[in-house]
Amino acid sequence: MSDTDAIDRVRAEPGTVYLVGSGPGDPDLLTVKANRLLEAADVVLHDKLPGPEIIDALPEDRREDVGKRAGGERTPQSEINERLVELAREGKAVVRLKGGDSFVFGRGGEEAEYLAAHGVPFEVVPAVTSAVAAPAVAGIPVTHRDHASSVSFVTGHEDPDKDESAVDWDALAATGGTIVVLMGVGRLPDYTTALLEAGMAPETPVALIERGTWPGQQVATGTLETIVDVRDEDGISPPAVTVIGDVAGTRESVVEFLRNERPSEEGGSDE
Amino acid sequence: MSDTDAIDRVRAEPGTVYLVGSGPGDPDLLTVKANRLLEAADVVLHDKLPGPEIIDALPEDRREDVGKRAGGERTPQSEINERLVELAREGKAVVRLKGGDSFVFGRGGEEAEYLAAHGVPFEVVPAVTSAVAAPAVAGIPVTHRDHASSVSFVTGHEDPDKDESAVDWDALAATGGTIVVLMGVGRLPDYTTALLEAGMAPETPVALIERGTWPGQQVATGTLETIVDVRDEDGISPPAVTVIGDVAGTRESVVEFLRNERPSEEGGSDE
Ligand SMILES: C[S@@+](CC[C@H](N)C(=O)[O-])C[C@H]1O[C@@H](n2cnc3c(N)ncnc32)[C@H](O)[C@@H]1O
Ligand SMILES: C[S@@+](CC[C@H](N)C(=O)[O-])C[C@H]1O[C@@H](n2cnc3c(N)ncnc32)[C@H](O)[C@@H]1O
Repeated sequence: MSDTDAIDRVRAEPGTVYLVGSGPGDPDLLTVKANRLLEAADVVLHDKLPGPEIIDALPEDRREDVGKRAGGERTPQSEINERLVELAREGKAVVRLKGGDSFVFGRGGEEAEYLAAHGVPFEVVPAVTSAVAAPAVAGIPVTHRDHASSVSFVTGHEDPDKDESAVDWDALAATGGTIVVLMGVGRLPDYTTALLEAGMAPETPVALIERGTWPGQQVATGTLETIVDVRDEDGISPPAVTVIGDVAGTRESVVEFLRNERPSEEGGSDE
Repeated sequence: MSDTDAIDRVRAEPGTVYLVGSGPGDPDLLTVKANRLLEAADVVLHDKLPGPEIIDALPEDRREDVGKRAGGERTPQSEINERLVELAREGKAVVRLKGGDSFVFGRGGEEAEYLAAHGVPFEVVPAVTSAVAAPAVAGIPVTHRDHASSVSFVTGHEDPDKDESAVDWDALAATGGTIVVLMGVGRLPDYTTALLEAGMAPETPVALIERGTWPGQQVATGTLETIVDVRDEDGISPPAVTVIGDVAGTRESVVEFLRNERPSEEGGSDE
């Protein structure tokens, strides 16, 4: 459809907060709606996760980086919530931009609750989550008729100030489905050990995808037994997702014909 | 960013197959890249799941409906695979368009394997999956710091010709995370019973979202114990997702200020 249609449909209402996901980082994976709202908003509150290509394209006079405060420490969520309400009450059309999808480990739920509790109208703009997209661009489908009738996204709990209920790795192993770990580079040794102890086969394929869809994308593959060494040899660092399960083996059979790798990644870590 | 940038970046290469997800159905939730590829492709192979708004906008002389054959029965996957290879070998730029994301219960993995085995270059274009987006537009975050440190997408096995490994409902219940069931309207009684038998609380919140982001979107809410009756009273039918877990209760506290409902849905089933 034409872009004029989209312009007509997407309006940024004054006094409204848009909880917008950026997708995994490639600007072409923004939704049509997110793209329009970024142009139409009075102000965009963002952190670093949407990635340099998307953030650098935002006009500086209409954006606020709420990822880190002056001292370098992370802005508390309560402060971000208050700022959203404040801007909306000034009559601004506000975009709250998160990496991936706001409602997948993105604290969008908390922001929605705070806004509603303060009487601020808001709209959710769903996005492409890195939990699906980072594996996909590496040639890995998170479900597969032959291998996986479920997929679970789980936090690797890298963030020490989180007190979410503990992840039950035994139960995840027992599902028999694909496991995708977000925020899971640092604790890779802990949960691969937990999954082995839960009875998963040591030769279960595992893939790490760092900065999926960014120009610096890196993919590394191994097994439950070898992946910690692979991570260290290849220098995989956050942001990255870990894909655990037979589907991770798909990459090998398709990568020769996969045209997703962007020019700067030729010679990536597992080629 | 401007659309000219996108036009410059997105090319539809002859002889290449693009495995493109449409997102949940609202044309504004297509990615920028999907939107461009739909315009640039020589031919688009699709079924019905992308929804009427997206499909009706495709020019008729460049699209092939491979959802159903003349007789009304479903086109076998093998036939679709062969058609993709055939068109690519004719030098066409081919888009294979699926509802949601191609790699989330979309058979994109099988298509990728077939293309690679036949030497056809392909690119994956990730999309917004209905498993995240349908709950989101109903005010339900699939993860939440206070409620869910994992989310599992699982098939409700409505499709009788599937022989995927059986879903382990006990293990899913034991994860303690959110469960999102796709293709799960018909078998709702079976798996709600299985989850109750696995020890989940009868008062666990459950939501059904039918045609999320389509003009005919419908949302119905209840608990593990009541949702089958709610489904029947509200006449919920496929395509719909089932969200099971405390996060489904979020809708109630935010819906008054949620601006996602599209005009034709005022007076939806649970308002
Ligand atoms: C706080 S979570 C946010 C997830 C995000 N809301 C989403 O839906 O993708 C941050 C984690 O997302 C993952 N992530 C985000 N963008 C990524 C990318 N482009 N490639 C790989 N992983 C990514 C990493 O696991 C990272 O630690
Ligand atoms: C074969 S699966 C395909 C899923 C798709 N690949 C995705 O990522 O959304 C079909 C199921 O997706 C779900 N679905 C797809 N689009 C939907 C929508 N707009 N609203 C609710 N459910 C949807 C329904 O559960 C439907 O039975």
